Amino acid sequence: MHPFAPGPRDRVDALGERGLIASIGRWLGTACPAAPAGIGDDCAVLPPARHRQLLTVDPVIFGRHFDAAVQPAAVGAKLLKRNLSDIAAMGGRPRAAVVSLCLDRATRVSWLREFHRGLATAARRHGVAIVGGDVAEVPGALIASLTLLGEADGERVLIRQGARSGDWIAVTGRLGGSLASGHHLRFTPRLAEGRWLARRGEIRAMMDVSDGLAKDLSALTPRGTRAALDLTAIPRRRGCTLAAALGDGEDYELLCVIDARANLRALQNAWRRRFSNLPLTFIGRFLRNRGGQNAPVALPASGYEHLRPAP
Amino acid sequence: MHPFAPGPRDRVDALGERGLIASIGRWLGTACPAAPAGIGDDCAVLPPARHRQLLTVDPVIFGRHFDAAVQPAAVGAKLLKRNLSDIAAMGGRPRAAVVSLCLDRATRVSWLREFHRGLATAARRHGVAIVGGDVAEVPGALIASLTLLGEADGERVLIRQGARSGDWIAVTGRLGGSLASGHHLRFTPRLAEGRWLARRGEIRAMMDVSDGLAKDLSALTPRGTRAALDLTAIPRRRGCTLAAALGDGEDYELLCVIDARANLRALQNAWRRRFSNLPLTFIGRFLRNRGGQNAPVALPASGYEHLRPAP
Repeated sequence: MHPFAPGPRDRVDALGERGLIASIGRWLGTACPAAPAGIGDDCAVLPPARHRQLLTVDPVIFGRHFDAAVQPAAVGAKLLKRNLSDIAAMGGRPRAAVVSLCLDRATRVSWLREFHRGLATAARRHGVAIVGGDVAEVPGALIASLTLLGEADGERVLIRQGARSGDWIAVTGRLGGSLASGHHLRFTPRLAEGRWLARRGEIRAMMDVSDGLAKDLSALTPRGTRAALDLTAIPRRRGCTLAAALGDGEDYELLCVIDARANLRALQNAWRRRFSNLPLTFIGRFLRNRGGQNAPVALPASGYEHLRPAP
Repeated sequence: MHPFAPGPRDRVDALGERGLIASIGRWLGTACPAAPAGIGDDCAVLPPARHRQLLTVDPVIFGRHFDAAVQPAAVGAKLLKRNLSDIAAMGGRPRAAVVSLCLDRATRVSWLREFHRGLATAARRHGVAIVGGDVAEVPGALIASLTLLGEADGERVLIRQGARSGDWIAVTGRLGGSLASGHHLRFTPRLAEGRWLARRGEIRAMMDVSDGLAKDLSALTPRGTRAALDLTAIPRRRGCTLAAALGDGEDYELLCVIDARANLRALQNAWRRRFSNLPLTFIGRFLRNRGGQNAPVALPASGYEHLRPAP
């Protein structure tokens, strides 16, 4: 469905601002609590937070993150899931979100209805309350920006910093071909996996793969080292080349760093007991780097043996 | 300064996404803590919150909330202050914000630098940390949407609901002419005043005046009543008509509801001791409404005497 109406019917400007906000509340249904916990007061009022909190924001933009070929419900779900993946990457639990909408006057009401229903379904599935937002007119645009507030699951939060020379690198799931396969719309954010990893003391650092493994790895790479990868081990989506797995992005998998002294076999066995349907693959390690470059390289032969724990 | 560069110089696309994000961190300076408390990880990590929390979002949009005549630093300050006023309206304390930017490739770097410096100055003044955000390209647009997280100052949060028939209505400061006078850029969000009011047991409900007194009052008006206003008491900005004070909006003053049984004189005296430079004016009360309409009316003569406590 094209988000803009070609004629005078089904246009959002017929609703007016108040009418649109009331409609959004109805479309969100139980995903939006009553004010002041949800839409309708100056701020949304949320419960206190015992643990450290997590805050992230990401948009979806017509013409950039989606086009007329994408179902509006899938756009709404993706808006939330992009942000959920950031909470997953810290080992956190999502709590509440607000949505800022910028839209053309001719935006279809039916598009917005399906968008919000898709957002609400994803929000209910992951226990997120949509508690407020803002609506503004911007000619020619359709932009929804979601800010997500989460909380650490316990005392521990996994950040990007923390890797040391010798540490192992692992990734969940399979990489590459996200756009072509529709994975960028259908993916499940790795929330349970992220929390499980944050409770394992041998995990030192974590992030999600959104720009592509090769690019994202640099954020985990400690100074004076480079990532040495076993290129044959990198888990690829069916039909994907190595280049696609390294560079496509929008994988929304977790990339984590494991203490050099960890028992990889024990970690792998524990993972398999908990997440039998999702691979956790050891793909390389950080090695001391004598040169100035820190781009990933192929792992020297001596590093391979530890990468494939026996089943 | 026009935010878009007319020629090839001073354009944001020359920085690239990474360069722009690094520049934003520098422009924000001490208003942006180091990662993971600030920009640079999957989420910003914030401390736990003992009291209930407040979440709100509002944008500034080129062509709608500002134009080329407005100094970019004032745009940045206004973006934060609009949201601070919503925290003030609940009696809360602001903590941290994230900013979502959508901009044309030709946006001037110098405009963005001054915008972020203005935002940072306002953030430091009000104790807000700018902890993260997102940057995306949208042709022809310049939109900044800020999500602000705050916390209640104690056990109490003032919401819009709570007024009863007979309760008094009061407003801080003066109303009207916000755009013409520049108040919409220069205003000070009523944070200290909002917290003070939230600690007074006789205040039952509160909101900020952003759409204009006449329109905003309806959100406080309980079912079966209407607001009866002493039109001569409404505090107007110098040179403003009554219509301007009732309808202009962007006043960012606090509008509160006081228990019918309260001692207005004692409240007024306590207010003056604490806030000697800002008037708190009693402007009317909620009265039972026999008709179906709930638009404000002029207060009947019997209601006036209590409205002007002796000094």
